[in-house]
Amino acid sequence: MTILAIGVDLGGTNLRIAAVDSNGNVLEKITTSTQVARGRDQVIDEMCTAIQEVVGKQSNAGELAGIGIGVPGIIEMQTGMLRESPNLPGWHNYPVRDEIQRRLKTTVILENDANAAAMGEKWLGAAAGVDDMCMFTLGTGVGGGLVLQGQIWHGMTGMAGELGHINVEPDGHPCNCGSRGCLEQYASATAIKRMAQEAIAEGNAPHMARTLKEDVEFNSKMIFDLAMQGDAQARTIFERVGKALGTVIADMVNIFNFPMYVIGGGVSSAWDAFAPLMLETVGRNSFVYRATAPTENIQAGNAPSRSVRGTMITKALLGGDAGLIGAARLPMIAGLVSPVGFSKA
Amino acid sequence: MTILAIGVDLGGTNLRIAAVDSNGNVLEKITTSTQVARGRDQVIDEMCTAIQEVVGKQSNAGELAGIGIGVPGIIEMQTGMLRESPNLPGWHNYPVRDEIQRRLKTTVILENDANAAAMGEKWLGAAAGVDDMCMFTLGTGVGGGLVLQGQIWHGMTGMAGELGHINVEPDGHPCNCGSRGCLEQYASATAIKRMAQEAIAEGNAPHMARTLKEDVEFNSKMIFDLAMQGDAQARTIFERVGKALGTVIADMVNIFNFPMYVIGGGVSSAWDAFAPLMLETVGRNSFVYRATAPTENIQAGNAPSRSVRGTMITKALLGGDAGLIGAARLPMIAGLVSPVGFSKA
Repeated sequence: MTILAIGVDLGGTNLRIAAVDSNGNVLEKITTSTQVARGRDQVIDEMCTAIQEVVGKQSNAGELAGIGIGVPGIIEMQTGMLRESPNLPGWHNYPVRDEIQRRLKTTVILENDANAAAMGEKWLGAAAGVDDMCMFTLGTGVGGGLVLQGQIWHGMTGMAGELGHINVEPDGHPCNCGSRGCLEQYASATAIKRMAQEAIAEGNAPHMARTLKEDVEFNSKMIFDLAMQGDAQARTIFERVGKALGTVIADMVNIFNFPMYVIGGGVSSAWDAFAPLMLETVGRNSFVYRATAPTENIQAGNAPSRSVRGTMITKALLGGDAGLIGAARLPMIAGLVSPVGFSKA
Repeated sequence: MTILAIGVDLGGTNLRIAAVDSNGNVLEKITTSTQVARGRDQVIDEMCTAIQEVVGKQSNAGELAGIGIGVPGIIEMQTGMLRESPNLPGWHNYPVRDEIQRRLKTTVILENDANAAAMGEKWLGAAAGVDDMCMFTLGTGVGGGLVLQGQIWHGMTGMAGELGHINVEPDGHPCNCGSRGCLEQYASATAIKRMAQEAIAEGNAPHMARTLKEDVEFNSKMIFDLAMQGDAQARTIFERVGKALGTVIADMVNIFNFPMYVIGGGVSSAWDAFAPLMLETVGRNSFVYRATAPTENIQAGNAPSRSVRGTMITKALLGGDAGLIGAARLPMIAGLVSPVGFSKA
């Protein structure tokens, strides 16, 4: 019988639910808004109702393996509680996983959203067929996920994979995490906006200043468009993005010697603006990369071919669905192997 | 019956051989010089003869699991060849492992020396009883070893764990690896000597300049002694060591959420000079560390107690024997579990 699972992407704004079968077919996908302001219990109520509706509709499609839920925040894997989640205030120290499991009477796996995205890209995306990889999600912040031997690496307390907080500039820009010069301060949408505002404040970014006036939803997409039109200040910003990412990916290659590094999240759509300096930096900084890179990968900006064995640095393929699909994958593979340090959900 | 194995530490200067039983008892330990200049075949001849002598003497002590050999360099695990080894010229692209195995007619495992040291500390040293850890070896260069689930993580081509080449200063001091600002340029004995020479050249390090005159074997030990005597320039050098190490350990904590990070190698004897700023930097840079550190660990310089659960950053315990003992451990655990990415030797 076909196995299917429900993937949930629970954000601070949207709640998305998908039914996915074990062949990777998305049978159904719904999106609603998350009424965070109405409180935790209300959100959980509505989420459970929506999940039950999807499960009911798909009840003939196969056997339900469980529910995987991707959440922006740090999850204590042992207890299934959220340790930190700025977008879900009031969820802290509440037995989220167990409560949902109690209501839905099936296996529930709670997972960090970047970890879920890594699992999605590993299953059906850029890293399909690859068992050891890491993923960067470049969004409002920079998230990370590590997949080792096909499973998410959680570490001792579920806090592993915080790739957005690898240091790239000693004494650099202050970060919310308490450090300075973290990758997140140079490669997130928030950082791109800040760097644009800095350039505008310095008075030498007329095009960006004009964009800012024309659109209050000033965002990295517009700066990307300016960069692709040749605007020097916008290009400089994406060069900083590329250099910071390249520095960290070079570190990761030297540490892991993985075959695959995937860049996803909204900012990854600006690939053409940051990838050239990113790949150049990885090549200069990592001798492990130079020893293992397929030749076409070294040529900046080329998407590597899957068939070439070597170190691949590539754009994510599943877009905004990576986390949703990865969340659905989690209950399908749970219990297959559960060594120390990996998911035990 | 007792299991025993032979550990070999093959350096550019010394060859050390130990017979170790599966309880960790060192039954015999010999040291001879490595006559690298006489050529690869001569060194292999002498090494095999010495190993056979040790094996012969210990033949009644138990069943031989095999030979583990730690080598300074990068090893291609699939083929057992050295990819790079500056201290063993002429060994490149030669089937070292298979040739020794052919001669000794027993399982031979060739391993990077820092990886072997990590395994030694994990088995009988500071990380005894810990399955997930990393080790830094601060010597002429800076080596690294990753142990995940009790086994060395080799990565795709055996080049994983190059922790000495994690970036700490963008556009920092040039490194032999082709990058700039690698950890090795701030935390190796070579780097300490260079920083001392820089301070002397600037004319503001009178004590170091005097030490330099009195002893041509000007080394990090003397600068450590000066630092502990309160010499400001010597203290500054070890503060740079501590800050660089702290930056990289913070990155590692954010990436892995391991319970244990071990610092070994000759420079680790200067622990008291660099550890305070190292621990301070880890605490400032890593929110994962702050969330998981046992309180006494935060107080700079304290050796953490083994019984406290949390993130431990500690000095290695086995000194120069870590690599030798770790090498002996390798054949004992080979074949027990061989998932992808781990040792398959």
